[in-house]
Amino acid sequence: MSEAKVSVLDWGFLHSDATYDTVHVWDGRFFRLDLHLDRFFRGMERLRMKISYSRAEIEGILANCVALSGHKSAYVEMICTRGASPTFSRDPREAENHFMAFAVPFGSVANKEQLERGLHIAVSDTVRIPPKSIDPSIKNYHWLDLVKGLFDAYDRGAETALVVDTDDNIAEGPGFNVFTVKGGRLRTPGYGVLQGITRQTVFDLCAELDWPVTIGDLRPEQLKAADEVFITSTAGGIMPVTKVDYEEIGDGKIGPVTRQLTDLYWGKHADPAWSTPVTYPDVPVERD
Amino acid sequence: MSEAKVSVLDWGFLHSDATYDTVHVWDGRFFRLDLHLDRFFRGMERLRMKISYSRAEIEGILANCVALSGHKSAYVEMICTRGASPTFSRDPREAENHFMAFAVPFGSVANKEQLERGLHIAVSDTVRIPPKSIDPSIKNYHWLDLVKGLFDAYDRGAETALVVDTDDNIAEGPGFNVFTVKGGRLRTPGYGVLQGITRQTVFDLCAELDWPVTIGDLRPEQLKAADEVFITSTAGGIMPVTKVDYEEIGDGKIGPVTRQLTDLYWGKHADPAWSTPVTYPDVPVERD
Repeated sequence: MSEAKVSVLDWGFLHSDATYDTVHVWDGRFFRLDLHLDRFFRGMERLRMKISYSRAEIEGILANCVALSGHKSAYVEMICTRGASPTFSRDPREAENHFMAFAVPFGSVANKEQLERGLHIAVSDTVRIPPKSIDPSIKNYHWLDLVKGLFDAYDRGAETALVVDTDDNIAEGPGFNVFTVKGGRLRTPGYGVLQGITRQTVFDLCAELDWPVTIGDLRPEQLKAADEVFITSTAGGIMPVTKVDYEEIGDGKIGPVTRQLTDLYWGKHADPAWSTPVTYPDVPVERD
Repeated sequence: MSEAKVSVLDWGFLHSDATYDTVHVWDGRFFRLDLHLDRFFRGMERLRMKISYSRAEIEGILANCVALSGHKSAYVEMICTRGASPTFSRDPREAENHFMAFAVPFGSVANKEQLERGLHIAVSDTVRIPPKSIDPSIKNYHWLDLVKGLFDAYDRGAETALVVDTDDNIAEGPGFNVFTVKGGRLRTPGYGVLQGITRQTVFDLCAELDWPVTIGDLRPEQLKAADEVFITSTAGGIMPVTKVDYEEIGDGKIGPVTRQLTDLYWGKHADPAWSTPVTYPDVPVERD
């Protein structure tokens, strides 16, 4: 990984003109790879990028990254950058788009201790980049608003952040969506947020359980008055939040809905309908 | 330059968590280097980034990049990225910030033909990322809105684009600010736009000439009804616009105010008060 680099002249760096997706591997199996590939191809199309690999070829490259790394649990990223123009032209149509992929050890937004007691989150008044500026259905690296939110949260002694939308409703956090549970009903913001795959997975689990989920505006006071709060991300799955701006959510303990969904979520990782096995080489890869 | 790369794990790439500045060298002299360094250091401070080089050391690195490249006219970029955490932590406070710089041949938003006849620009309804999301005084790589505007412009047969602010006033274009001239009075947007150094230079030239400049909202219809329109960028200086959305500006020719400012602008490049010489090695650099 220390040798995986991108040209400083690639507009994926100089203009953050790129889309990407991150899928995880758990216990040797990709989780919901199809949904991640769907989103990645949709993003490339919306950014008018073209790569020479087919979907099947990309599946092969990703599996190979994981197999060669030897990681049984991995965070696997596929990226398409605008690339650069061979003639120094400033016209993005003349750039050669560039595909890359890598696998690193699985990482989580919340560490072990935070998963056991719940995260302390702060609501920042930073506004998530609105859809009129950037289509949030294109997964992108425009994170300075989220980084600002994170520093705001750290300044206030919290562990991570939520930022708001243009109407001061709760939007999302750095790399995750948020859900509330109130009287057995789930709620998650719909406007201007990333259509997260783990968020989608919560919808799918709730459909199996016949639990109601509302996609709609979420006021900061609704968040704080919830029975339970959790966040969702490929980096960690379903993660409990037990404190918002120093106020305890419910009784300050991880709630039963969050626990049940988390158990179901991890259970699905062995289900062939939701996951795909990685074929690892028989012989361990030699390393220096 | 083909070897200048950044790690794919650098958050400057993965989160566009970076600030930068670009200064140009013309005829062997940096133009207004002090202003670029001021802005670069301000951006790093606002992003809470720290590098181990002093301002004087950075000046030396930039001059050395140009001298070693041998370019007499160059586009010189200094970048500070968040870097990455040595422990794979997601906490940006734990990252080691990373400074880099490079010099490439001078490039311009407008090519020779466009400089002679004026650019054809289109107004896109894409909204520039608002200040509540990202502080525009931090020069940043969040360009997907500008790239979208550019594709909108190409689709309509224009050569470059302007995007709007949240109230549908004209904001700026991909890498440039915009000015209008109407009845001898200049006007340029003030809200949510990059505080461009070439824009500042136009203010300074107008102050010398005792010409009035208004910083304020600019409606699309005001833009089209102007006597003259020009754009400003380190990449090209002051560049004429003679057509907006297929409508000619004034008589469709480059106007006298634009011409006079352009001449003054280039004249200042030899003025020791506005420029600093680069010391090139006596012996030409050997290349493979």
